[in-house]
Amino acid sequence: MSVEQTGAAAQRAARTLAGLTRARKDDVLAAIVDALRRRSAEILAENQEDVRLARENRLADAMIDRLLLDEDRLRDIATAVQDVAALPDPVGEIVEGWRLDNGVELRRVRVPLGVIAVVYEARPNVTVDAAALCLKSGNAVILRGGSAALHTNRILSEVVQGAIIESGLPREAVSYLGPDRRELTELLKQRRFVDLVIPRGGEQLKEFLVEHSRIPVVYAAGGNCHAYVDAAADIDKALPIVINAKCQRPGVCNAIETLLVHEAVAADFLPRAAEELARRGVELLVDDAAAEAIGNPSLKRATQAHYETEFLALRLAVRVVASLDEALDHIETYGTRHSEVVVTEDLAVARRFATEVDAACVYVNASTRFTDGGAFGLGAEMGISTQKLHVRGPIALRELTCVKYQLWGDGQVRG
Amino acid sequence: MSVEQTGAAAQRAARTLAGLTRARKDDVLAAIVDALRRRSAEILAENQEDVRLARENRLADAMIDRLLLDEDRLRDIATAVQDVAALPDPVGEIVEGWRLDNGVELRRVRVPLGVIAVVYEARPNVTVDAAALCLKSGNAVILRGGSAALHTNRILSEVVQGAIIESGLPREAVSYLGPDRRELTELLKQRRFVDLVIPRGGEQLKEFLVEHSRIPVVYAAGGNCHAYVDAAADIDKALPIVINAKCQRPGVCNAIETLLVHEAVAADFLPRAAEELARRGVELLVDDAAAEAIGNPSLKRATQAHYETEFLALRLAVRVVASLDEALDHIETYGTRHSEVVVTEDLAVARRFATEVDAACVYVNASTRFTDGGAFGLGAEMGISTQKLHVRGPIALRELTCVKYQLWGDGQVRG
Repeated sequence: MSVEQTGAAAQRAARTLAGLTRARKDDVLAAIVDALRRRSAEILAENQEDVRLARENRLADAMIDRLLLDEDRLRDIATAVQDVAALPDPVGEIVEGWRLDNGVELRRVRVPLGVIAVVYEARPNVTVDAAALCLKSGNAVILRGGSAALHTNRILSEVVQGAIIESGLPREAVSYLGPDRRELTELLKQRRFVDLVIPRGGEQLKEFLVEHSRIPVVYAAGGNCHAYVDAAADIDKALPIVINAKCQRPGVCNAIETLLVHEAVAADFLPRAAEELARRGVELLVDDAAAEAIGNPSLKRATQAHYETEFLALRLAVRVVASLDEALDHIETYGTRHSEVVVTEDLAVARRFATEVDAACVYVNASTRFTDGGAFGLGAEMGISTQKLHVRGPIALRELTCVKYQLWGDGQVRG
Repeated sequence: MSVEQTGAAAQRAARTLAGLTRARKDDVLAAIVDALRRRSAEILAENQEDVRLARENRLADAMIDRLLLDEDRLRDIATAVQDVAALPDPVGEIVEGWRLDNGVELRRVRVPLGVIAVVYEARPNVTVDAAALCLKSGNAVILRGGSAALHTNRILSEVVQGAIIESGLPREAVSYLGPDRRELTELLKQRRFVDLVIPRGGEQLKEFLVEHSRIPVVYAAGGNCHAYVDAAADIDKALPIVINAKCQRPGVCNAIETLLVHEAVAADFLPRAAEELARRGVELLVDDAAAEAIGNPSLKRATQAHYETEFLALRLAVRVVASLDEALDHIETYGTRHSEVVVTEDLAVARRFATEVDAACVYVNASTRFTDGGAFGLGAEMGISTQKLHVRGPIALRELTCVKYQLWGDGQVRG
C-alpha cells in the first residue's frame, strides 16, 4: 500500500471512529490491554531482536535502555492504556453555545481532528500510547517509528490492529509505517488525508518537519527551563523547589537547566543550594559572582553554550542577576517557552513574572516538574507543546480534537 | 531595515502591547479613527494613484472596484475600527482554572500570540482592519499587501503608525512590507519572531504559503458550500434558505455553490426553486434528473469541474440525489469544509448531517450566509478558517490569542 493509500484508508477509518460512543472506544482499549497480555512472549521476543541488533550496531547504553522491554515495562504499557480508557471522552462536549438574535441555536461541539500522524524515535511505548490516545479521542493514527525499534513497533502495531479487528472496527484505525525516510517525506505531503503531525523526538526531527511538512504540526519539543530565586524569596521554599526541579528526574523536559539568583540573596542562598546540589551529584557551571557567593573560585564557568543547552542530566548553570529584569531577559534569550519558575514572596514580582514570561507554563513558588498532563489533572498526554497555536502545554486528549459550529434553525435567512 | 530586523522590532513591540489595558488599546484605536478622518484627502489621493495605475495596467473592473476608496468606503473603514474598540478585550480572560491536589492553583490565561503577519492582496481595507484586530488582541502585526494597492496600503499604514506613535506606543506595533516576493519568502522564514501568518487571498496564495511558510499558518480559504434539501424538507423553508444562501451576496465564501435535492421532493421543489432563482438571474448547471424535474431539458449540464468550483457568482450547480448518504458523499468529495446546510424536518436526518458533515459550520434549516463573526456574535474577524488546528470558523479576536498556564503555589515540589 502506498503512503497515499494508507492516508486515504486512515481517513475512511476516521469517519467510523468519529461516531463511536465512549463505551465502544473503551471496549477497544480493553481489547488492546488483553492482547498485550496474551501476546507478551511474542512482543518480548521481537524486542530482543531489536536489542540484539542495537548492541551489534553499538548503540549507546542509554539508547538501548530506552528500547528495552521486559515484563514490567510491558505491564506498564498496558496499564497506561487502561488509564486512557478511564479518562472521560472529549468528543461531543458542547464547549459553548448561545442563541442568536434570530433564534438560531449555535453550539461549538468538540469533534476528533481526523487522522493524526505520530512520528517518533526509539521508545516502543509510544506505539501503544499514541494509538490509545488517538482512538479514545476518535482519531485514526498513522504511526511512524524509528529504525532501532523496528521489530518491536511492528509487533506492537500488529497486536493493536488485531484487537481493533476483533472489536469489529476498521484495522486502518491504526496504521504503521516503517522507518523509510522517503515514506516519511511522502507522509508529510498528505494534506488531503492527514490532519496533524506530532513529532516525538529531538530538535533534529523537529527541524526536518519544519522543512518538509505540508501538514500542520504540533511540536512536543525540548525544555530549557529556569528557576529564578528573587531578592524577596523565602530561601526555605527556594531550596526544595530548585532541588526538586533539577534532581527529581533530570532527564525530562520540565527539569530546570539554569538557576538565576538575585544578588541580594546570593550569599545566603547559593552556599546552601550548592551543598545540597553537590550532595545529589549535580555539576554546577557558574558565573564569577556565583563562584564567589559559593566560596569556591575553582568551579567551572558557564558559557553561552551552556545557557543554550538542555542538559537533561545532573548539570546546572548558575548565574547571579542584579534584577528581575535581568532574569526576564535571560529567560527571554535562552528559554524554549516551556516551564519557568520564580521563587518570591513579593506579589509585584510574582505578578510581573507570571505575566511577562512567555512560556507554556509559568510557576510561582512551585516546582517546574509539575508540567505534565497527569499532574495537571488532564490525564495521559502526547508530550508538552511549546508552540502557541492550537495547544500550549500538555497535549492531552482534548488537544487531539477540534471544534465545529453546529447551527440549528427553523428557516432563518440573512437580511 | 531587513525583514529579520522588522520581525525582531515587531517582537519587541509585541512585549509592550501584551501588557496594555483595554482602555489604553481602545485609545490607540480612537487615535487611528481620528487620523483616518483627518488625513482622508491624502489617503484618497494615494488611492487614486493606485486606481490610475490599475487602469493603465488594464486590471479587471471587479479588481479595480475592490481597490477603489471613496469618502463612504473610508468612513466605513474608520467605523470598523470603532467597532473593534467596542469589543471586549480577549486578553487576560481566565479560560479555566482549578486547584491541584497539592494546593497549587492552576489557571489557563488568555494572552496575545505575539507577532502576526497578514498577507493580503488588493483590498486596502485589510490594512486597517488587520491592524485594529491585532492591536486590540495585544499583538504586533506585520502587514504585507499586494502590489495593486501599494500607494493606498503605504499611506494607510503610515496613518496608523502615526496614530500609534502619538499614543506613545512603539511604531513597530504595526509594520508594513511592500509587495516584493523575495521579502515575503524571507518573512515566511522568521519563525523566531513571527508567531502566525494569516493569508487573505485566493487558493494560489494559499499554495504558496503551504510550500514556503516555516511559520504556522491559519488559512482563511475558499468556501465551496452546499445546501441539501432532504426528502423530509419543508419546501416553504427550503426555498428562502436556498435563495438567501445563493443570492443575498453571491461573491462571498459562505454562499452556496451546489444544491443537492432528494429525488422524493425534486418534482415538488425544483420547479419552484428554478423559477425563483432564474428571476434573480442565477444560471443553473443541472444533472439529467434535475433538468427533468424542472421540465427544461435544454438546461446546461453540470460537470465535475462545476462541482469543484467556487463560482462566487450567480451560478448554481443542481444535483438530484437518491439518499442522504449520496448527499453526504457529494459534500465529502467536493466540499471545502466551510459551511453546509440540510433542510429537513426529520430529526434523525438533521442529527446525522450535523454530526457526519466535516465542516467548520454545519446548519440545520438556516442559511449558510450566517457564517460570519458578526452574525455569530463574535464581532469583527479576519476571515473564516476552514482548517482544524487552532481555529475553525470565524477568526475573531479570541482566535488571535493563545493560552498560557499560570501555576501559583507556596513551595510545592513533586514527590
